Amino acid sequence: MSSTHLSFTDRAAHRAWLASQSALPAGFRVGSSRFSFTPREAPKPAKMTLTLIALDRPSAGFAAVFTRNAFPGAPVVVGRSRLGEPELSAIVINNKISNVCAPGGVGDAERVCAEAARLLGVPPTQVLPSSTGVIGWGLPVDAMAAALPDAVASLAAGSVMPAAEGIVTTDLYPKVRRATVGEGSIVGIAKGAGMIEPNMATMLVYLLTDLDVPRGELRALLSAAVETTFNAISIDSDTSTSDTVALVSSGRVPCPDTGAFARALGGVCRDLAEDVVRNGEGVRHVIRVSVLGAGDFRSARALGKAIVNAPLFKCAVAGNDPNVGRLVQAIGKFVGTQAEPVDLSRLQVRLGGIEIFSRGEFRLDPAKEAALAAHMRDAELYQSAPPIDGVFKAPVDFPPHERCVEIEVELGLGGAGAVVLGADLTHEYVSENADYRS
Amino acid sequence: MSSTHLSFTDRAAHRAWLASQSALPAGFRVGSSRFSFTPREAPKPAKMTLTLIALDRPSAGFAAVFTRNAFPGAPVVVGRSRLGEPELSAIVINNKISNVCAPGGVGDAERVCAEAARLLGVPPTQVLPSSTGVIGWGLPVDAMAAALPDAVASLAAGSVMPAAEGIVTTDLYPKVRRATVGEGSIVGIAKGAGMIEPNMATMLVYLLTDLDVPRGELRALLSAAVETTFNAISIDSDTSTSDTVALVSSGRVPCPDTGAFARALGGVCRDLAEDVVRNGEGVRHVIRVSVLGAGDFRSARALGKAIVNAPLFKCAVAGNDPNVGRLVQAIGKFVGTQAEPVDLSRLQVRLGGIEIFSRGEFRLDPAKEAALAAHMRDAELYQSAPPIDGVFKAPVDFPPHERCVEIEVELGLGGAGAVVLGADLTHEYVSENADYRS
Repeated sequence: MSSTHLSFTDRAAHRAWLASQSALPAGFRVGSSRFSFTPREAPKPAKMTLTLIALDRPSAGFAAVFTRNAFPGAPVVVGRSRLGEPELSAIVINNKISNVCAPGGVGDAERVCAEAARLLGVPPTQVLPSSTGVIGWGLPVDAMAAALPDAVASLAAGSVMPAAEGIVTTDLYPKVRRATVGEGSIVGIAKGAGMIEPNMATMLVYLLTDLDVPRGELRALLSAAVETTFNAISIDSDTSTSDTVALVSSGRVPCPDTGAFARALGGVCRDLAEDVVRNGEGVRHVIRVSVLGAGDFRSARALGKAIVNAPLFKCAVAGNDPNVGRLVQAIGKFVGTQAEPVDLSRLQVRLGGIEIFSRGEFRLDPAKEAALAAHMRDAELYQSAPPIDGVFKAPVDFPPHERCVEIEVELGLGGAGAVVLGADLTHEYVSENADYRS
Repeated sequence: MSSTHLSFTDRAAHRAWLASQSALPAGFRVGSSRFSFTPREAPKPAKMTLTLIALDRPSAGFAAVFTRNAFPGAPVVVGRSRLGEPELSAIVINNKISNVCAPGGVGDAERVCAEAARLLGVPPTQVLPSSTGVIGWGLPVDAMAAALPDAVASLAAGSVMPAAEGIVTTDLYPKVRRATVGEGSIVGIAKGAGMIEPNMATMLVYLLTDLDVPRGELRALLSAAVETTFNAISIDSDTSTSDTVALVSSGRVPCPDTGAFARALGGVCRDLAEDVVRNGEGVRHVIRVSVLGAGDFRSARALGKAIVNAPLFKCAVAGNDPNVGRLVQAIGKFVGTQAEPVDLSRLQVRLGGIEIFSRGEFRLDPAKEAALAAHMRDAELYQSAPPIDGVFKAPVDFPPHERCVEIEVELGLGGAGAVVLGADLTHEYVSENADYRS
């Protein structure tokens, strides 16, 4: 999916590359503030980072796509109403607590917006809130209000890095992607990690551009870009209550070519989506499924997701075990639950370019098994480090490479297709999530 | 779900209880044979157990329900055709290789049936084949044919235990349940462990009875019993290509009361289904979700499954972490994907009998958090043993108790409901499945 095929040998090299991508488009400043507080539901000290993204002047050019979870967080409820406002001036983002179904949550989100707005000298309705973290707990509004002046004081043009660093939770590293169109640019940052099957994911994505594209077009282009990128990835099939992708234009640079803007936006979304998977909680292998010859995009994407969400196949990938029986099982399980019968007689499946299934039968032999295992080992991001007190932790804080376990599923039914990204299921994922809050 | 509330302090106590349940109904004999062979796809020695269940005389009273996976194994293909035969005489079952989409798989299954039939002196079409194990590999038919005489020679009346022991793969212990009706009985055995979201599961279940119930009624009663038992459990959402539940009557004992038979059959299925979950791969907590106040059974069951299949909630349960945000996230994710809007304003959620969510908001405080964590610890089957070479293994080979993490979801929409059983997501599950074949 990524056309860049980056690789990094250590954290410093990765950070240097991120810095090279991080120039803020004209008209934006970012800042952050980190502070300690005590959640009221589980009184144990915790830390939160408040991140601010501010426009130098209010802009009508903003778009956002939100989670389809039936229990959206309070910031999503507020954010949906902000789409009806004439202008946007700032985004205020916190990690650690997601403010979902907490008593008084919408009021809390509005109070944080109002406090940020007061300090920035803009109306509260021009501030978009975002929260990520534990579901069910309430925001520490007083502590956040006390920290906001520091965040405002730190606002600076130049680099998006303070925001890219500020929004993360269990991410191993920040994620930044950029593209240029004429004299302008699009810079995107993402917070990912877990609870990720966007529709949207526990994923916060902010796309900032100085290119002047009208609100209506921005919104249409964002929705289109999300469908084939953020909505075609899954770490664990869970759909967060907080997922948000926002696209904001400062309008400072004339856009020479809307088509070029759409392609640049699609590229940034595609690469950020892959970054989110590659840095998903406990991910040791990224799995890319290309479904070809499908009747339509949506059924192709659904089949791809069924494959990357099949727990037993995910475990096999974690173990570099080419247990392709589990891959075909996942296809059969998906097709078996469809309302309409699907003709699988022309199905062909390839793993790492090697045919493993065609004409209703497996095509396996010992030499292929060895080649399949080698393909999986080659796509491994890191080998598990020995657990400490039974807890597995990723030993890298940078992406070593951009290789994937490559699966092609050719249905022979039509001309449509989809590319879906997912990941293996590892001890590192379980360690991360069996005791996340403590 | 189980009304028995058994608990065992060690393997010997559990085995003694199993033995007390294992009397074979009249008219059946079971036997088995274990042997070594070399799979042709990955030449490394392996072991297989062949299990035989034989009727003393052919019976027209048999029923079976099979997987809905679109790639059913060859034994399922053959088994479906056997349902059209007038009589059944035997079942031949192998573990280790499931004979799914292997070249020539149906011919292999038929050849094993023919060889068993020849030795038993019955027509091949009176033998039902079953296979479980690795998907994609071919059966070692010659080695199986060579082992069959030993299996036939070992056939004996009295106890179902040789069959209960013979059909397992990664199960920690055999599973046997029985019920009596008048002078007759139903004895069921199950092979479970992983790839279990029946529809059916990687689950082989054989229910043997001497009660004389006509074929048509047997088939209707089996389908009904499966819907609320084996089709309401999920270890990992994966649907095996081999799932089979067979019910065979020797017809030796008049059935005094079809209603009593139906209730007894339902009880055996319910308890075996819970056994399969409790002994699922890596299961440390059984999760029981009671969905109440739903519009219909199917949507209630689907919501229950969405909860027990949500990876992040499953991980939280593994860690005895009452991260109820993830539970409500799972409900919201499911409802968010429904075609029709669902009114969640009357939703109430209880965990361990404690209200955690009502009227759109969480109801949490530190005292509740402590009580929720205690409920989860109380339902834990065992604590993780330290990994050896990074591999986690269950330290028990018996079920210590029958307690569950109890979740009640009250929708307030109608009068229907469903009970669904699932499990946590643990290091033991990943260890079991990241390198199952080697």
